[in-house]
Amino acid sequence: MSAPPPVMLPAAVNAHSHAFHRVLRGRTHTGRGSFWSWREQMYRHAAALTPELYEKLATAVYAEMVTAGFSAVGEFHYVHHRPDGTPYPDHDMEHALARAARNAGIRLTLLDTCYLKGGIGQLLSEEQARFADDDAADWLARLDSLRAAFERTYDPAYVSVGAAIHSVRAVDPESLGTIAGQLDPQLPLHVHLSEQPGENRACSEAYGLTPTELLAEQGLLSHRLSAVHATHLTQRDIELLGAAGANIVMCPTTEADLADGIGPALELAGAGAVIALGTDQHAVVDPLLEMRALEHGERLRSGARGRFTPSELVAASSTGGARSLAGGAGLIAGDAPQPHEDQIHVRSDSVRTIGAEGEQVVLAATASDVETVVIGGEVVGRNGIHESLGDPAALLSDALKELE
Amino acid sequence: MSAPPPVMLPAAVNAHSHAFHRVLRGRTHTGRGSFWSWREQMYRHAAALTPELYEKLATAVYAEMVTAGFSAVGEFHYVHHRPDGTPYPDHDMEHALARAARNAGIRLTLLDTCYLKGGIGQLLSEEQARFADDDAADWLARLDSLRAAFERTYDPAYVSVGAAIHSVRAVDPESLGTIAGQLDPQLPLHVHLSEQPGENRACSEAYGLTPTELLAEQGLLSHRLSAVHATHLTQRDIELLGAAGANIVMCPTTEADLADGIGPALELAGAGAVIALGTDQHAVVDPLLEMRALEHGERLRSGARGRFTPSELVAASSTGGARSLAGGAGLIAGDAPQPHEDQIHVRSDSVRTIGAEGEQVVLAATASDVETVVIGGEVVGRNGIHESLGDPAALLSDALKELE
Repeated sequence: MSAPPPVMLPAAVNAHSHAFHRVLRGRTHTGRGSFWSWREQMYRHAAALTPELYEKLATAVYAEMVTAGFSAVGEFHYVHHRPDGTPYPDHDMEHALARAARNAGIRLTLLDTCYLKGGIGQLLSEEQARFADDDAADWLARLDSLRAAFERTYDPAYVSVGAAIHSVRAVDPESLGTIAGQLDPQLPLHVHLSEQPGENRACSEAYGLTPTELLAEQGLLSHRLSAVHATHLTQRDIELLGAAGANIVMCPTTEADLADGIGPALELAGAGAVIALGTDQHAVVDPLLEMRALEHGERLRSGARGRFTPSELVAASSTGGARSLAGGAGLIAGDAPQPHEDQIHVRSDSVRTIGAEGEQVVLAATASDVETVVIGGEVVGRNGIHESLGDPAALLSDALKELE
Repeated sequence: MSAPPPVMLPAAVNAHSHAFHRVLRGRTHTGRGSFWSWREQMYRHAAALTPELYEKLATAVYAEMVTAGFSAVGEFHYVHHRPDGTPYPDHDMEHALARAARNAGIRLTLLDTCYLKGGIGQLLSEEQARFADDDAADWLARLDSLRAAFERTYDPAYVSVGAAIHSVRAVDPESLGTIAGQLDPQLPLHVHLSEQPGENRACSEAYGLTPTELLAEQGLLSHRLSAVHATHLTQRDIELLGAAGANIVMCPTTEADLADGIGPALELAGAGAVIALGTDQHAVVDPLLEMRALEHGERLRSGARGRFTPSELVAASSTGGARSLAGGAGLIAGDAPQPHEDQIHVRSDSVRTIGAEGEQVVLAATASDVETVVIGGEVVGRNGIHESLGDPAALLSDALKELE
């Protein structure tokens, strides 16, 4: 008897990553805690990063992603200054992340993030100083310089620059308007949106608008926008995002871990938005569990099965993410690879997948079943081992020890 | 540098299993579907089972469980008659399951199930004929005969008999009363409870009571009762189950897959019930993902983190399940093993678990990280391979082919 052949799928695109959050996995579950206490713990780790340490950690995290089946990552990057808030001389942190991606063979869209405030109407805290530029114009100038530096240095099929607004908490309305008017419309633009009810309340109290309405008012809703999370939306928010053809980056395992809630993915897709997926804080790095969690969330909140078909889940994980990182255009920015150049082979003969129909294997498999990962036509991972870097667990172990 | 040692945990108890549902994994996600259309597909597979085929299939399924980290299973068993509804001569189906458990080395509590009606006020359908006894007295007599047969044949530390009522849909109030009065109070008693809103509506319309209230009225609530699912409960239901010290068998991956919803686990535990876990339909057989899904469900419905501590999750997966299968007594029925005789070693140096604190590894690991499974002091599984049966995937492949 011959074993059933592996199922070939487009490789996954991780449309929302904070690489350094990997440090927190398995370390934040003591006590009761909340999203906000988790954030305090995260800030402490952000404070410890240097370009050297971050390159080492991100290399390990990206190697973990590659072996799990991801061929591309959108790195939502705000640890761009020194801890005291002064800039590095030559985009040192960004080059560290680019080198990490090149080491691991993953395609990187570095979403350099505008972060100006400590909250609505609040000054930056000391811990947030390294996330911040002086104002929107300052961030835009740094972004231009970064693009030029990356274009000189890297193959655009593998490393490119995008933009991000941290959130309506961290960027005031006037600055949002400046960005809408002055940011190159070709660039993808990501934003954390309505992850927690607290953000919605603060925004409504300050401006009489939901975060989505505020972005709309400032001219930021378009197909180049990616709204990350989009968990707590009004019907009007859904219509606005859908009509704009925005991308929605759901991060289901993070949204469960952080107790955010379950966003209205199916309604957003029905309204015209495009769903993508991200692993965000990396409590889980597994595109198959992310797809499954998206569908399970839909089932749990609706009481109905089959909300997304298996092929719709694969699309969210691949072409949806590619559109998000390309700012609403076809595939990944730069010299976009053809999809067949980035693919994964998923075992259909494992204890988890045996018996499953080919198309439905995505609801039975985990990243442990990813046999081969092909990026740009080359095999980069096999059975959990990175072709050039070896076992990602060993890289992670070394990087975590150095950080301590 | 030395790798961190594995984390030793009590082995998991799978307090709710329908072994043959494993056939459905990865085969029910075409079209939109519902719980009820899923049930139709499940009935077709039930119709095809013979004692020979079921022994082969259940051996494979129990081998999958063992290598995933389960040392004990409560098999909620209703395929006990021939397809035409006539009994087998000598408990053939039950012996098939007992032999399967012995083959795989897992401890079995066979929960022989009373199933009398096709629904509230409905006759049995043709497909349900093989699940049924003539009446409660008939089932009680068959149960007595089965207990005597098993006591003659098997080591009670490894194979024992318990009782189950399928649901308030399948057993009428008069029969519930008969069971409450006549069933040996030493036996564990399991029941599917309020998995779907439809059951609650039908029960309320027919009797003016919730399913929990109906069980209470008929004298069935006690610490020997295990309510399986308990998804859609009233505050009064929670108080009744808690005051009785009942066991609650949550099946989080099934309840997500079947779009049942998220039950009030924390409120039930707070009221005095004991939480256990089961893999039910085996869309997922992974005690670590089950623990994680229990906690993630709590976080998603409450908006708060840390609802159960990691050690509370481990307790649900081990001692909670053992109490459920022992009918509220200490550990597993029969000559109860000491916990240290059943344990698993979970790798803390894998790509998933590296960096996690020991106690928190249960929120990072999957069954792929289960290195060693010890049952009754003997190693039964190592790194996904069963010590005597080999790769469970190969056993499953053979069994699934024979069923087709």
